[in-house]
Amino acid sequence: MSSAPLFYLSYVLCVTLGFVCVVFVCYWNASWRGGFAWDGSGLQFNWHPVLMVTGLVVLYGNAVVLYRIPLTWGQTKQPWKLLHALELLMAMFFSILGLCAVFDFHHANNIPDLYSLHSWLGISTTVLFTVQWVLGLGAFLFPCSPVPFRALFKPVHVWMGHAIFILSLISCISGINEKLILTLNGRNGSSEEAYSALPAEALFANSLGILIIAFGLVVLKILSNQKWQRPQCNQEESVTPLLPERC
Amino acid sequence: MSSAPLFYLSYVLCVTLGFVCVVFVCYWNASWRGGFAWDGSGLQFNWHPVLMVTGLVVLYGNAVVLYRIPLTWGQTKQPWKLLHALELLMAMFFSILGLCAVFDFHHANNIPDLYSLHSWLGISTTVLFTVQWVLGLGAFLFPCSPVPFRALFKPVHVWMGHAIFILSLISCISGINEKLILTLNGRNGSSEEAYSALPAEALFANSLGILIIAFGLVVLKILSNQKWQRPQCNQEESVTPLLPERC
Repeated sequence: MSSAPLFYLSYVLCVTLGFVCVVFVCYWNASWRGGFAWDGSGLQFNWHPVLMVTGLVVLYGNAVVLYRIPLTWGQTKQPWKLLHALELLMAMFFSILGLCAVFDFHHANNIPDLYSLHSWLGISTTVLFTVQWVLGLGAFLFPCSPVPFRALFKPVHVWMGHAIFILSLISCISGINEKLILTLNGRNGSSEEAYSALPAEALFANSLGILIIAFGLVVLKILSNQKWQRPQCNQEESVTPLLPERC
Repeated sequence: MSSAPLFYLSYVLCVTLGFVCVVFVCYWNASWRGGFAWDGSGLQFNWHPVLMVTGLVVLYGNAVVLYRIPLTWGQTKQPWKLLHALELLMAMFFSILGLCAVFDFHHANNIPDLYSLHSWLGISTTVLFTVQWVLGLGAFLFPCSPVPFRALFKPVHVWMGHAIFILSLISCISGINEKLILTLNGRNGSSEEAYSALPAEALFANSLGILIIAFGLVVLKILSNQKWQRPQCNQEESVTPLLPERC
């Protein structure tokens, strides 16, 4: 428990950075991209970065470090498993809604879907995340599967969770970069507002990218510290389903 | 040692994927981007993706999994420390040369440097990598620092190594995406060769991006498996400098 103050320092940094990322992505789209709507216009597209950064990065990142909070270790794991699943469900809902925003915008404006490397990675990340959530639900909350299988599946679930988070970071950074090139360079190739002239919007959105990276590294640092892992006093408990084993 | 066959399977996959990534990035630039030169033209730029993928991702990734090879565990660690440092030195040389290629190209064509999020991340990654290499050299090969400091510094060195690898993946993916948008969409916005029409080049370069991600995940999987860590039979040995402690 002696490392708890350092954990809480990292955790406060994680929550603060996550909050600042959400504020930045909202402010960027509200101030420079014209705000939000759900009408097939560019204003609908603006939901895409907001929902992906909020869901796939910030909510997801907070959900994966939940078990590391020492305050929860003295208590039974069950409510924290449910909170972990609910946070990730919300993250998944935001991500899928974020994809709907961009698909609707493309269809309304005759723009092809899924051509860029960013889009290939983004859709793969969201699909993997959905599969991971459903498998996690099946294995740890509604398990018909035997206890040994659940114990065996847990490290796979944990590792896939980390991998999906890294893919989320890559998708978001490549997406912000793509959006800035397409909007700033595309329409104002040689003006002072071009991306290459680093106007205020570019500086602000690039800073958002750096903040996302900082948030991601803090989350990965928390996950990598073995002293901050929830102690496995009772191996059975960690694989006990929340709901009765009748399926 | 019972997990050794699975390690070697992963290691062969890692080396194979790394090799395929290098072939793909060379073929992309040789076939669709006109090949290579060092004359300030677009042909000089083509060295940039080749050198960054080869250095910052493939060589770097291979260097960080070096200690995991069970075959090396029965031997003294010293030559492997030197090989680790040399592989990373080569990776650093390739990365810096890759940056020179793009800066030269920009200066020759009056294109501003360091405006995109990709470039901010790429330059930060290379700087961090250089600092990490120099600190690693100082701490583990030419240490004037006391043994307890080196033992304390080792987990920081390992964690920073992982973080830099993740930053390298993000930089390379956002870079490939940026290059495809600027070259395909920029000049042929509405033609069949536009990025959004997914011509052969786009399909090929997107596949390179997916291969880089696959390589990165295999490297991170190898690093995350605690059974595959070099056993620390002798704590002293792991922090023994290669060269005498006279500085």
